[in-house]
Amino acid sequence: MLEKKRAVVLLSGGLDSATVLAIAKNSGYECYVLSFDYGQRSLTELNAARRVSESLHVADHRVLRLNLEDFGGSALTDHSLQMPEEGEQPGIPLTYVPARNTVFLSLALGWAEVLDAQAIFIGVNAVDYSGYPDCRPEFIKAFQDMAALATRQGVEGQPIRIETPLINLTKAEIIRQGLALGLNYAATVSCYQADDEGRACGRCDSCRLRAKGFADAGVADPTLYSPR
Amino acid sequence: MLEKKRAVVLLSGGLDSATVLAIAKNSGYECYVLSFDYGQRSLTELNAARRVSESLHVADHRVLRLNLEDFGGSALTDHSLQMPEEGEQPGIPLTYVPARNTVFLSLALGWAEVLDAQAIFIGVNAVDYSGYPDCRPEFIKAFQDMAALATRQGVEGQPIRIETPLINLTKAEIIRQGLALGLNYAATVSCYQADDEGRACGRCDSCRLRAKGFADAGVADPTLYSPR
Repeated sequence: MLEKKRAVVLLSGGLDSATVLAIAKNSGYECYVLSFDYGQRSLTELNAARRVSESLHVADHRVLRLNLEDFGGSALTDHSLQMPEEGEQPGIPLTYVPARNTVFLSLALGWAEVLDAQAIFIGVNAVDYSGYPDCRPEFIKAFQDMAALATRQGVEGQPIRIETPLINLTKAEIIRQGLALGLNYAATVSCYQADDEGRACGRCDSCRLRAKGFADAGVADPTLYSPR
Repeated sequence: MLEKKRAVVLLSGGLDSATVLAIAKNSGYECYVLSFDYGQRSLTELNAARRVSESLHVADHRVLRLNLEDFGGSALTDHSLQMPEEGEQPGIPLTYVPARNTVFLSLALGWAEVLDAQAIFIGVNAVDYSGYPDCRPEFIKAFQDMAALATRQGVEGQPIRIETPLINLTKAEIIRQGLALGLNYAATVSCYQADDEGRACGRCDSCRLRAKGFADAGVADPTLYSPR
């Protein structure tokens, strides 16, 4: 019998990464799920990650604590900065967390190396990418090239692949794919400032993109919004 | 007046990274020092990092906690594995920590981005590199290329440089350079399994390389060895 192929899947608990996990599972991977507690305002996202991991019966789910808030510089982790609510603006937004995907992929790479995993899955998206430099295909390609030189597997001829199944999809296409795989989006939380009950604000960039995705897909939005 | 240029310097508390810090400082950088508490056996290394940072009057020194031991796979973090003491062997050694330099450089990159630093200094060495894939020049080059695509600075045309002043030096040359800069090597700890008083075992790969370096440089070895 062939050994099951393994993947490390980065899961925030939001819509995109939950869809990625469903896709990785559907592709036959044994999924090792990695989430980060990095001082993000919304801890309800991590609770969502736990719910999604449980419902998809993953092989393992780990939450790594990272003090990224010590570095400052982002409205997602620095509570002294005002969360932008005025819709999309030109340039790199204040919600950008410095080198976040680089850091997350690097830690996924370490675990993937120990697990002897063939792939790392990440839910970056170049369509609704919100201006973050580390969501672009050229960044992912450069990370994969670097990873091939960084690891035991790479040196021994089997570099780890970085899989980005959402990279060219619109939010509506992502949602349709998740629904086709039976994903329950009510369990996911995308809001940058969800309340303690996991209810979304409906005003931040992430909420706007998500709501538009459900509207464009022509399906009902299952998101719980805060009455505020 | 010109603003002082800034660098993030990775410091373990060992001989190499302490020398790198002295070099960065001597090159006119305001130094922001980053160390990691990643479940390494030798916490005395971190105490050494604090001593070295203080004596060199750095701008800031942060110690980030990282649960790399959760991933397992290395004699440096997995206490169930036997530390190799039989001298250098072919292949990648058991003391290799999966993706360590990738993870450390990624976190340094995040801080560098917030600080608007021009460079990250790391003490990798391709001469005495002990078989770690992430100590090779081609890895460093690939990381720098990736970082240029990952960050705000890179997008805006000022990519962060990864500086590796030790990469082509022998241990003896490193030691001579540090001594010329006034570095006190008695404050550094290189041993993979130093005791609580910071005394070295004298038998692990790291102790062997260090002792040979002082011998080759023709200077007295200031290392405190355990009487065991």
